[in-house]
Order: sequence, then structure tokens, then C-alpha cells
Amino acid sequence: MNNFTYYAPTKVVFGRGTEAQAGALVKEFGGTKVLLHYGGGSAERTGLLGKVRKSLEEAGIAYVELGGVVPNPHLSLVYEGIELCRKEGVDFLLPVGGGSVIDSAKAIGYGIANGGDVWDFYDRKRVPSSCMPLGAIVTIAAAGSEMSDSSVITKEEGGIKRGCNNNACRAKFAIMNPELTMTLPAYQTACGCADILMHTMERYLNHCDNMELTDSLAEGLMRTVIHNALILTDHPDNYEARAEIMWASSLSHNGLTGCGTDGGDWSCHRMEHEIGGMFDVAHGAGLTAIWGSWARYVYKENPGRFEQFVTRVLGVEPQADQDATIRKGIEAMEDFYRAIGMPTCMQELGVDPTPEQIELMAEKCSIAFNDNLGVVKVLHKADMAAIYRMAAGMERVEA
Amino acid sequence: MNNFTYYAPTKVVFGRGTEAQAGALVKEFGGTKVLLHYGGGSAERTGLLGKVRKSLEEAGIAYVELGGVVPNPHLSLVYEGIELCRKEGVDFLLPVGGGSVIDSAKAIGYGIANGGDVWDFYDRKRVPSSCMPLGAIVTIAAAGSEMSDSSVITKEEGGIKRGCNNNACRAKFAIMNPELTMTLPAYQTACGCADILMHTMERYLNHCDNMELTDSLAEGLMRTVIHNALILTDHPDNYEARAEIMWASSLSHNGLTGCGTDGGDWSCHRMEHEIGGMFDVAHGAGLTAIWGSWARYVYKENPGRFEQFVTRVLGVEPQADQDATIRKGIEAMEDFYRAIGMPTCMQELGVDPTPEQIELMAEKCSIAFNDNLGVVKVLHKADMAAIYRMAAGMERVEA
Repeated sequence: MNNFTYYAPTKVVFGRGTEAQAGALVKEFGGTKVLLHYGGGSAERTGLLGKVRKSLEEAGIAYVELGGVVPNPHLSLVYEGIELCRKEGVDFLLPVGGGSVIDSAKAIGYGIANGGDVWDFYDRKRVPSSCMPLGAIVTIAAAGSEMSDSSVITKEEGGIKRGCNNNACRAKFAIMNPELTMTLPAYQTACGCADILMHTMERYLNHCDNMELTDSLAEGLMRTVIHNALILTDHPDNYEARAEIMWASSLSHNGLTGCGTDGGDWSCHRMEHEIGGMFDVAHGAGLTAIWGSWARYVYKENPGRFEQFVTRVLGVEPQADQDATIRKGIEAMEDFYRAIGMPTCMQELGVDPTPEQIELMAEKCSIAFNDNLGVVKVLHKADMAAIYRMAAGMERVEA
Repeated sequence: MNNFTYYAPTKVVFGRGTEAQAGALVKEFGGTKVLLHYGGGSAERTGLLGKVRKSLEEAGIAYVELGGVVPNPHLSLVYEGIELCRKEGVDFLLPVGGGSVIDSAKAIGYGIANGGDVWDFYDRKRVPSSCMPLGAIVTIAAAGSEMSDSSVITKEEGGIKRGCNNNACRAKFAIMNPELTMTLPAYQTACGCADILMHTMERYLNHCDNMELTDSLAEGLMRTVIHNALILTDHPDNYEARAEIMWASSLSHNGLTGCGTDGGDWSCHRMEHEIGGMFDVAHGAGLTAIWGSWARYVYKENPGRFEQFVTRVLGVEPQADQDATIRKGIEAMEDFYRAIGMPTCMQELGVDPTPEQIELMAEKCSIAFNDNLGVVKVLHKADMAAIYRMAAGMERVEA
């Protein structure tokens, strides 16, 4: 096992009605003037924003508002937010939404606290030294941004989607009411479940000696997500299942399931970023569309780990040989994806990239990671292109 | 499931050689002059204190020292520490040791930050509003105090052992090098494993609807501790097993394994506090000496929960009926305790209380908790006395 640092300082306030504590929590963490940051009209329509405004007013917290965050949040709105906060003297950021809104707030926070062009942090030209404090009110269980050190922003010009990981952006608090996620469309719910699972799978499917404790936590979390994602396909208003998924979303990406590992693989996430940047698909769906192709392409580099995954997490019975067990497991995972309405290839994702587009995605991903991606099998540009082609049905890899 | 707050802000720096980061971490969290707080001579003998002093000096951090913390740490030394810190202008506390040393530092921190008699917070007369910041260098995997909100102090006069739980005392950082625990005597190692297990068992053996996710994390953690505690009885210098136990000690008591529950039972902890206050036994051993008696006395109030515990955590095969399964499970747990050298009754613990002493312990515990203790079965004074008598072999409860 490796040495590790675990740092998840976010105060989680979880359960029914907790959005009413927004004002008190902002106050507890020293905020006096807030940027209320959100996406489209749903937070307004459901009455959530009204409740949050009321809570802020009752706590004597001033606020300005900036809506309009879209999935794969845009750099241009981040710039707008930075300018607005500076003009208005905002000292605390309060995103109300899912990962896109929280990530947009984190980027605004970096921009205000550090000066210069905030894109530098995503483009890996600079490292942020601080971030304006923020608290999140979560309405989508997916990205886990409310407890993570991660933020992903898309620069519209060129469709470049890049992430920045830094402890400075960890939220001071996260308000998580599972009821707020009940109105999500089924597709978005399933995308969230896929993303949550993948945050732990990326850490778990690694290439190192692992901790028994981290493995047991990760396996329990993944089994819980799979079980409850299936419940939600038929019963979207099941509070208990919503709560299981929502809490899993935070624990899946706050570092807990990676303690003692080599950091995990993350190839699927990085390769999906190129799909998302080019085609603007839902992140979770992009992940499931390439996971099976990635798994088939790399598993022989660490078959024992894949075998452990498919037997302990997916409950696959050992087959005639290890290879057959793993391949059955990958199919079981794809069956699960389909059962919750997620794609297992590019066409099911609704995109049909040309060979040139695939080359371009592989090229961009290769450049972003110095042509060295992942740990199960280190991927170079040709490997990335091969996986994209497999996911697009252009190439088949036989074990 | 219940609403919950989860707040574990401690930055954990885990692994070999991490004690060398002490000075840098104190600096990161704003300390300029430190109280180095520790127990007997072992931290000096092993060279650990020397390494910590060097690290502080290299970071330009001044320090004063106060050793002499004993198991069941004394209030008198806390008073001494408060006075010393005030006189010396200390602004950061650095306990080097196990739960006793960290708890003693937390009490000093409460005393400095709040004024008045610090015992008031343990005697439930006042609630602390703040605590001087502290970071812990952990040398015993047991109490989990390095991430918990808990501190337990013994007032020598009258042998009164009381706990205070408050978020203000959460450590800013915890340095956890499993190698530092390798020189512990086998008995102390086993006591630590017992305490770690019990921190999750107290939360898990409750009386409410539970979260599937919390259950799966708790079950995985308990299985990991049992497995590795047995490894350590034969191989005390097994780094991996030491690491599993050490990380489990933090996760077992930082709140994670109680999310969504009713808070857990805690009767064994509270009843052990009276044994520890009167006889000065090791906390972990005191816990195992009464757990079986407690379990037999209360399990019929929530048999489904006990059945889940013994089948999923202890691997007990279902017997002819639920009752038999549970009783077999309690015996399996006691077998495990004996296998790691822990007592399962008072005599094995080395104490033989008189009927008057048992009445006195029950009386003190009853008064401290308003004659309402625990959730599986709410215990009144007569129940507490009955459990003490069972543990002392004076009374037998047949199912």
C-alpha cells in the first residue's frame, strides 16, 4: 500500500429539509455576502431557490445571483461570475445544483482568489494557492463535487474540457436533501449513478498493492450504488434509494475509496472529457459508452484486480478460467448499464464520430496527459484511438 | 434512516516517515508556538520525540513540553497544561501518543479557549464554544481521538471518568505512521483493536432503520479489524496489518460508520467508564469484559440487527432459529476476544468487584445519564447492575 493524505473537511448536512439551514451555515463559515449560483429554471420552479433566499435573508446574509450554468459548464460564465463577485464584494459562493454548478463556482472562486486568467489552472500552466470559500446545495447526485477537490470546466472555443484538482476548492459545507433529486429525469439520474460508480471504479481498478479496508469500503459502496440505481429506475421517488445514491456520490469522490492506492486509473474520465468537449454529451453516459471498451483493452495488464472486482462487486461466479470470469463480468457491468438506460457504445450514446474526429480526440487527450494516461495499462495516443474506435464499433479486440 | 451531520475535517497524513511532516503541518494550520504533549518514556526512547522536535525546529516552530499523561488521563495534568500554555503563549497543541494523550490535549485546548473550570464540560454543566487548534501524532491505534469529536478525562478525586463530545476539538491534522505502533505490547495492541471494533459496534448495534451504505462500510470495517487483529497476535511487526488497524481506528470513530443511524447505543462505553474510573483497567479490555453480558441482556429488543451483525460480520451460519444464531454469534465474538488475549468477564479483566462496588458503578452511571442509557434496550440502574453482575459471574441470564 502507498502512503496517502486524506482530507475531506466539508461539513455534510444531510436529509429532509436541510436546505433551510443554508443561511446559518454560510454564517457559521464566515460569509456575509453570497453569490447564489445556479443553472436553468428548475431550481426556481421547484421552489428551492425561494427557500434558500429566505434562509439567507433570515440569517442576515446579503446575496447577488448568477444563473445559466449548463452541463459541461462554460468558461465564459466563470469569467462573468468573477467580474460580478468583484464588483459586488461577494465573500462566499453558494452554488445550488449539481456538479456543473459547483464546479463553475469553484472556478469563480479560484479566479477571484488568485488573479490572472483562471483558465491557466485548468490548462495546467499555474496551480491555485487559494479559493474563495464556498458551500454547496446539492440537487443532483453524481459528480460528488460537494466534497471533492475537483472542478471541470469547458472552454467553448475549441471545445476543450479540463479539470483542476486542488484542496483549496473543497466546500466548507454541503447541504444534501435527497428529496431535491426526485424530480430529475430518469436519464439524468442514471447518468449520475454511472458517474458515482466510476469515481470509485477509477480508484479501485488500479495497479498496486491495495488496502483491505479501502477495498471493503469501495466494494460496499459500489454494491450499494448498483442495487439502488436499479431501484430508482422503477421507483424514482424512493427516498431511501435516493439517499443511498446521494451519500454514495460524496463518499465516492472525496478520496475515501482511494486511500493507500496508486491514485487510480482515470483513463475513462479523461477520455470522456474529449467526447464531452466535442459532442456535449452527458458525462455519465459518456463514461459508460467507453468503459467496456477500455476494460477489454486493458484488463490483461492486471487480471487479478478485475477478477476481484467482478466477483466481489458484481457477484459473478468464477468461470472455467480467470479470463472468462473477467469477460463475463464486463458483460455483467454492461448489462447493468443497459438496465438503467445507459449506453455501452458511442452509437447508443447518440454520437457517431468520424475517423478524423476519433484521431482528434485521441490527439487532444494525449497532449493533455503527455501521452501517458492511466495506470492499469499506460495508454498512448494509439491506444486511446483504439479504445475510441472499439467504443464506436469500428474495431474489435478479442481476448 | 435519520438526517445526519458528518463532519471530519482532520487532514490525515498516513504512512511511513510521515512524522517528519509535523513542523510543516503545524505551520500550514497557523501554529507558531506548540505544546508538545506526551505520556511516559516510550516516545522518547523510540526516538520519535527527537524526530518531532527536529521537524518543529526546521519549520521555525517554537515549543514547550509536558509529558506524564497516563491511561485514563488525569484532570490534574490538564490543569497543569492549561497553566503552562497560558504562561508560555502557546497557540497550537501537538499531542504525541494515543487517545489518552490526544484527549488530554483536547481538554487543555477547551480550558484555554473557554476559561472557567474545564471540568464543567465533562460534567455537562457547560458546552465549550471553541478549542485551541491541535494536530495529533498517533502512536496507538485505538481510541480514534485523532479524528473524533470526543475526549475522555478522569477526575482522580472520586475516580470519575467522563467524556465530552464537541466538533470544536476535531484535530486539524493527524500524522499516522503504522510503524510507530509496532513496539506496543501485545496486550495494548489487542485492547486497541477491541476499542476500534466497539466504536463501530456501538453505532451499528442500534434501534432504527439503517442506511445500506453505512451498514456496508461498517461491516467491511469490522471484518477488516477482526482479520488483522488476529494477524497481529502472531505478527506484531506486519506493516500492512498495522496500517489496516490504524486507518480503521480513525474511520471507526470519525462519524462515518454512524451516518443515518439513531446515534448508536454506547452503553458498553458508558458502563466501562465506571469500571475504568474505579479500577483503572485498560479501556479496550474493560469493553470486551462486559460486551457479551450486555449483548445477552439486550439482544431480544432488536434481534434482527444482532442476526445481521453475527452473519455478515462474524460469518456465523444461520442456526435452527434466530435466537440460536445470535447466541452462537455472541460466543463467536467472545472466542475472537479470547483469541487476541482480551477478557470476556470481570475476573479475566483482573478485577473482582464486591456487590457494593457494582451498586456504586451502576449508581454513578445511572446518575450521569439520567437513568436512561442506550438505544437497543434503554437501561436503568437495575439493568446496569444486572449487566455488571453478569460480567462478574454473579448472575446468569438464560435466553
